[in-house]
Amino acid sequence: MRETEPEAGKRPLGVGMVGYAFMGAAHSQGWRTVGRVFDLPVEPVLSAVCGRDGGAVRAAADRLGWAAAETDWRALIARDDVDIVDICTPGDSHAEIAVAALEAGKHVLCEKPLANNVEEAEAMAEAAGRARARGQVAMVGFNYRRVPALALARRMVAEGRLGALRHVRLTYLQDWLVDPEFPLTWRLLKERAGSGALGDLGAHIVDLAQYLAGERVAGVSALTETFVRERPLVDEAAVASGGLAAAGGAAGGAEGGAGVGVEGGSAGGIAGGTRFGAVTVDDAAVFTGRFPSGALASFEATRFATGRKNALRLELNGADGSLAFDLERLNELSFHDHTEPAASAGFRRILVTEPDHPYLEAWWPPGHGLGYEHTFVHQARDLLHAIATGAEVKPSFADGLSVQRVLAAVEESAAKNSVYTQIPA
Amino acid sequence: MRETEPEAGKRPLGVGMVGYAFMGAAHSQGWRTVGRVFDLPVEPVLSAVCGRDGGAVRAAADRLGWAAAETDWRALIARDDVDIVDICTPGDSHAEIAVAALEAGKHVLCEKPLANNVEEAEAMAEAAGRARARGQVAMVGFNYRRVPALALARRMVAEGRLGALRHVRLTYLQDWLVDPEFPLTWRLLKERAGSGALGDLGAHIVDLAQYLAGERVAGVSALTETFVRERPLVDEAAVASGGLAAAGGAAGGAEGGAGVGVEGGSAGGIAGGTRFGAVTVDDAAVFTGRFPSGALASFEATRFATGRKNALRLELNGADGSLAFDLERLNELSFHDHTEPAASAGFRRILVTEPDHPYLEAWWPPGHGLGYEHTFVHQARDLLHAIATGAEVKPSFADGLSVQRVLAAVEESAAKNSVYTQIPA
Amino acid sequence: MRETEPEAGKRPLGVGMVGYAFMGAAHSQGWRTVGRVFDLPVEPVLSAVCGRDGGAVRAAADRLGWAAAETDWRALIARDDVDIVDICTPGDSHAEIAVAALEAGKHVLCEKPLANNVEEAEAMAEAAGRARARGQVAMVGFNYRRVPALALARRMVAEGRLGALRHVRLTYLQDWLVDPEFPLTWRLLKERAGSGALGDLGAHIVDLAQYLAGERVAGVSALTETFVRERPLVDEAAVASGGLAAAGGAAGGAEGGAGVGVEGGSAGGIAGGTRFGAVTVDDAAVFTGRFPSGALASFEATRFATGRKNALRLELNGADGSLAFDLERLNELSFHDHTEPAASAGFRRILVTEPDHPYLEAWWPPGHGLGYEHTFVHQARDLLHAIATGAEVKPSFADGLSVQRVLAAVEESAAKNSVYTQIPA
Amino acid sequence: MRETEPEAGKRPLGVGMVGYAFMGAAHSQGWRTVGRVFDLPVEPVLSAVCGRDGGAVRAAADRLGWAAAETDWRALIARDDVDIVDICTPGDSHAEIAVAALEAGKHVLCEKPLANNVEEAEAMAEAAGRARARGQVAMVGFNYRRVPALALARRMVAEGRLGALRHVRLTYLQDWLVDPEFPLTWRLLKERAGSGALGDLGAHIVDLAQYLAGERVAGVSALTETFVRERPLVDEAAVASGGLAAAGGAAGGAEGGAGVGVEGGSAGGIAGGTRFGAVTVDDAAVFTGRFPSGALASFEATRFATGRKNALRLELNGADGSLAFDLERLNELSFHDHTEPAASAGFRRILVTEPDHPYLEAWWPPGHGLGYEHTFVHQARDLLHAIATGAEVKPSFADGLSVQRVLAAVEESAAKNSVYTQIPA
Repeated sequence: MRETEPEAGKRPLGVGMVGYAFMGAAHSQGWRTVGRVFDLPVEPVLSAVCGRDGGAVRAAADRLGWAAAETDWRALIARDDVDIVDICTPGDSHAEIAVAALEAGKHVLCEKPLANNVEEAEAMAEAAGRARARGQVAMVGFNYRRVPALALARRMVAEGRLGALRHVRLTYLQDWLVDPEFPLTWRLLKERAGSGALGDLGAHIVDLAQYLAGERVAGVSALTETFVRERPLVDEAAVASGGLAAAGGAAGGAEGGAGVGVEGGSAGGIAGGTRFGAVTVDDAAVFTGRFPSGALASFEATRFATGRKNALRLELNGADGSLAFDLERLNELSFHDHTEPAASAGFRRILVTEPDHPYLEAWWPPGHGLGYEHTFVHQARDLLHAIATGAEVKPSFADGLSVQRVLAAVEESAAKNSVYTQIPA
Repeated sequence: MRETEPEAGKRPLGVGMVGYAFMGAAHSQGWRTVGRVFDLPVEPVLSAVCGRDGGAVRAAADRLGWAAAETDWRALIARDDVDIVDICTPGDSHAEIAVAALEAGKHVLCEKPLANNVEEAEAMAEAAGRARARGQVAMVGFNYRRVPALALARRMVAEGRLGALRHVRLTYLQDWLVDPEFPLTWRLLKERAGSGALGDLGAHIVDLAQYLAGERVAGVSALTETFVRERPLVDEAAVASGGLAAAGGAAGGAEGGAGVGVEGGSAGGIAGGTRFGAVTVDDAAVFTGRFPSGALASFEATRFATGRKNALRLELNGADGSLAFDLERLNELSFHDHTEPAASAGFRRILVTEPDHPYLEAWWPPGHGLGYEHTFVHQARDLLHAIATGAEVKPSFADGLSVQRVLAAVEESAAKNSVYTQIPA
Repeated sequence: MRETEPEAGKRPLGVGMVGYAFMGAAHSQGWRTVGRVFDLPVEPVLSAVCGRDGGAVRAAADRLGWAAAETDWRALIARDDVDIVDICTPGDSHAEIAVAALEAGKHVLCEKPLANNVEEAEAMAEAAGRARARGQVAMVGFNYRRVPALALARRMVAEGRLGALRHVRLTYLQDWLVDPEFPLTWRLLKERAGSGALGDLGAHIVDLAQYLAGERVAGVSALTETFVRERPLVDEAAVASGGLAAAGGAAGGAEGGAGVGVEGGSAGGIAGGTRFGAVTVDDAAVFTGRFPSGALASFEATRFATGRKNALRLELNGADGSLAFDLERLNELSFHDHTEPAASAGFRRILVTEPDHPYLEAWWPPGHGLGYEHTFVHQARDLLHAIATGAEVKPSFADGLSVQRVLAAVEESAAKNSVYTQIPA
Repeated sequence: MRETEPEAGKRPLGVGMVGYAFMGAAHSQGWRTVGRVFDLPVEPVLSAVCGRDGGAVRAAADRLGWAAAETDWRALIARDDVDIVDICTPGDSHAEIAVAALEAGKHVLCEKPLANNVEEAEAMAEAAGRARARGQVAMVGFNYRRVPALALARRMVAEGRLGALRHVRLTYLQDWLVDPEFPLTWRLLKERAGSGALGDLGAHIVDLAQYLAGERVAGVSALTETFVRERPLVDEAAVASGGLAAAGGAAGGAEGGAGVGVEGGSAGGIAGGTRFGAVTVDDAAVFTGRFPSGALASFEATRFATGRKNALRLELNGADGSLAFDLERLNELSFHDHTEPAASAGFRRILVTEPDHPYLEAWWPPGHGLGYEHTFVHQARDLLHAIATGAEVKPSFADGLSVQRVLAAVEESAAKNSVYTQIPA
């Protein structure tokens, strides 16, 4: 089923997506919608989607609106009708696919975290740098930069509305691992996911901290913890039949807890007929840090905050004002202007749905809020504009690498008795 | 540009949409998305869109993803590839189009309010009744019933979680008319819009009150007011060039303040070179009412509540519990369970993003909220299911008529010194 | 037990309080505290408290800090050490006590509502007018004017921060009558309480509407309802022993649901060994109104809003801004400044604890909030200042009368099919 | 002026208070009010207050209601009519006064933090232990344990409503030092205040974390920062005249930013005619920690969070539920019950004003909230009950010492590159 044909007079740009689970579905919605809402300089075409299980990927292509299906990502990259490779797989395959795509001359959008370790991220950033010289674009999918309220927050910081920054505090709280019977999915295995709450949720808040502050974290001191150390293995029969989908497509690289399905590689004990395996990633990471400006930062990422579903909450305090945000109320930004008379000052709730708010001109009248998925529409818009105009894309692979270095420093600090660990520039 | 082709094995259902402004864009997003997210028994196809200005409607068709464009709604209805007629025009054309479509054997989705007066609404309901006997579906577009939080609210009321209902209070507050320089658009003319805040915003809250309470308003006592009685006429040259779009498509039938562009029919004074015309609808309506069960209701609809952008707020109080909701935070439902021990009772914020919440199974993981436009996806889903299964559709034209009768009683009461006015069953 | 002796150099002013239940306790806390916190021109002395039951009133005097106890309010008024008579009894005795006290040359503070009907209120206002000419002060206890956030709201309205007023909406929601087994206390008998939710809660929101808007309600259209029409009589043995306290002091004239204990005068049926009596007041009143300026008002007072404990919520919308408040969060005022650029505008939460907020200079550092009882400290402060300086006191008995007229118009409208009922100036 | 005389049949207990600034005023309000509201087994008498400046302390005694004034705390302790010594001075005098009072056989209430260092705190705890054997009581003034919502939170944790604890996160955010022109008060000098935000604000949240979790922090990793390193010296003439008040009484040992007035001991540079001195304490402290149970903790204390006035915010996440609280809304506790069905679960706002909530039976009807100062009434109540009944008092000096050890570990970690620092049991 064809989703789109090029609009008259616009250059078509074919997209090829690898992976089609949670993240793939979200990205698809972005690609399908972006040209219907925004006035674009180019025309995205949903050319092909890729997964290991041929039947499953063809069904996904039909459902999500991709013209073709592939079972080998190398074949996807090789397609002439693919100009942009959109990588929605778990982190262990990011580097290989992204570097290959860049070397094949394609633009790349890669889900976050950029990679599972610094070495991979460095290789990817280098490949992106070489590709940039050839006019290619490589973006990492820190989609929350495209929440209008957060783009507005960045704009206000850049305008100096906060003055000298003193504090940045961010939490990203979810609760989908609270139940010890939740199974050992790929997100809980270090070899697949790189890390746990740290890479999944922590990567987002580290990127946002750096994006909003406009500077990079200089060093961190960290604690990590795995509260539940063994979990039931996913049923092996289920794995056998569903494993390809699980591996090829299930669950993109972003937060959410979706995508059960994993190999039972690191099996452990057996209890009541159920076999258990070791959780090899963190359940939670709590860390503090410093910015070069002198601002202090605090971070908390966890999958054990009962009742918090997607509580990415942040606050920035500057000498002249403060900003606060909660992803569970993503159409709102809270702002305190400290230059006002104290008698009528206070945190105001800005409903970020006005036409002069970032991305909003294209959408609905004021007060008619957007949702989570719109971040992917905006991400697609920004990527396509960068491709069309040659402008620098943000967040770049270099930005993704900088986040990866913070994550690595967190793990190093946690392993070294929380000692403050500098992050290489 | 073709948006969709029928999925293998599914019956295609062609949609023809009349009007393509705010509501048309929102409906288009619903039609485009519904089959990508929900597992449907039929396959919607965006066959054709209709507007008076041929060039504009063709551009809209391209942008919004409709296969064809028409300039005459009768031609649209006559198309073989149109099974569903989706009416997104101002209220003065609803009755004629809807009745013709029903008589032509088409299913109909009609924007709210159903009509501009009770007589038209009665004719429409009668036509829908006849069509129902032929297996056709006619739904009125009270899309807020499809906000998951409100569908959940209805489910909880139906389950008896609130007990005997005592109070229903609803406000729908916007502020886009506060500026007296805002021009005299079609929404401010009785002959086009039927009424002002009453029909635009009040219709929504009357429908929701009846939907949530599960009973119809028995009578009302009302005050209405027009705060700004003359407004600048829209520039006539602009009207001349843009008038067709304005008339044929500009601004769907729903709330929002979008869609400037209207004929300067009722011109009045001239000030500073600008000609003014009389506002012939209400700016605000405040009314109280009773339900047959004995519950009291209060309603307020206004376009003059400074700072409130889309504040459809409601609360229901029953003997056993209460519910509260605010459309500006549409992913949340507030619930107080009065059967709990007082020491730990309180209004809880239910984040309506769980898989067992209405419509949510098809969407994202918990905490990843939806937006305004998703109500149109859900509306399309429910309409398509009703068509496929033959189930009764809600809200029906009879429901729309019942709302129209309340609106009429509000106007009658306001005209008769606020006297309590019974509503015919 | 003596609470206070005059501070050197300050004129002592003796207070005599009638009634010592909920309101009496709250007023006592006000009188005891005011001189410890505010720098007063005079020195309040808690001279005597009055109730019918000698033993009970002496115990109350000891507990609450009054120097003497009386069992006859006429004797209290006659005391030389009583300069101010503070009336905290049910509404049916307000007029007689207040007029007598004023005629005896005393200053008067009278709980709200001023009286149980307009005639009594007129007599009281006339007496207050005559007394005013003699230099006496008469204040009605609408204590919520002394919530700092509401005093700030009034200041901001008076400064023109809202511009032309369009909407005033107020609710006062409680839930202590939801249980049909709650007994038939004096508050549910017309002959004692005058009316139900209307006089208890509605009086407050009518006064606040007029206070904040700076104008008086011109007319109203109303619905009232009694949801539970019979309730268990209070145990008669309990009434026999506790009746004097109940009558003489139990439960002041203000909201809250405290003060069970009443005579079983209007006995009705018997069920399961319990005798029932008829509720002769409203459980809820819902009304709309107009101000002379053209602003619309809506009001709702109820004791059946499950989960709402003391939800006096109000919002004012003007052309230039809006204010919102909730008594359950009484240290906060919400303000939207519509003259700001839309991109950073929004309702701000003013934490009303700054030194330049009303009454706050005397209290704690910013952020260290006050509670309900502090309204009585502030009320005492303002009364004492008015006495010392000869300044006009607000709210005066004339203000109380104007509220009484609105309440009467509400009852008249409700009795006449909700017809809009003008309020005499 | 005598505030109180013993009630018939109750043992009088004389209170002698040292210091009479912010904390002294708050404690006075507690002592004056406690017997008016609670039914006590003993009768507190405000015997004497002490400060260095004779005139000022006599004026304070009159204003605050103390029967006598002393200028030497040793004389205060020696008074026969002083049974309880209430220490409201800066931290550098706590140990000496408290130990002397305990050795003189008096009960002691000492403001927090218990001392300026661990050694002093140990000496105090030892003295308290010896005194306990003699039947004396020694309590440290962590008054926030007496916020009803937090007492309720502790009760719910103790009842097992949260299950196994995973996360404890607390911030205490204020903003009164944001202005670099704010002068160098005693709170900014290490020799007077011990530490900055850490001891003032951090002490509260460490105590609450331990109180609520029911276990002691095992170790911490910390960052501290002084953003503004030099501040204007307080005018020396002003210091000369007001210094005694500043030293003897000004500003109790608790948070708030009140009490400007300090010696210019550590003078530094001169700018524009103003002399500057070095700030020798932290402006902010950010730290993480572990509990023996495995729960992770995070803490942030700062005086630079623009717009946050008294934002002591905390959240506890357990396997079965979560609790959240914000001191700026101190009548509310937020609770999520994770054992409920997900479809109707969510954080509920418990309005902590019900009769069966801690301390509430004595106060007003539901919904009529309390304020900051009531924590001191409750503190007085609990202390008096402990004295009367011989029950163990909480928080004890041992509890205060445990907090002091955490604060010391924070400083040690911050000095040692944030290394995780164990806290001695």
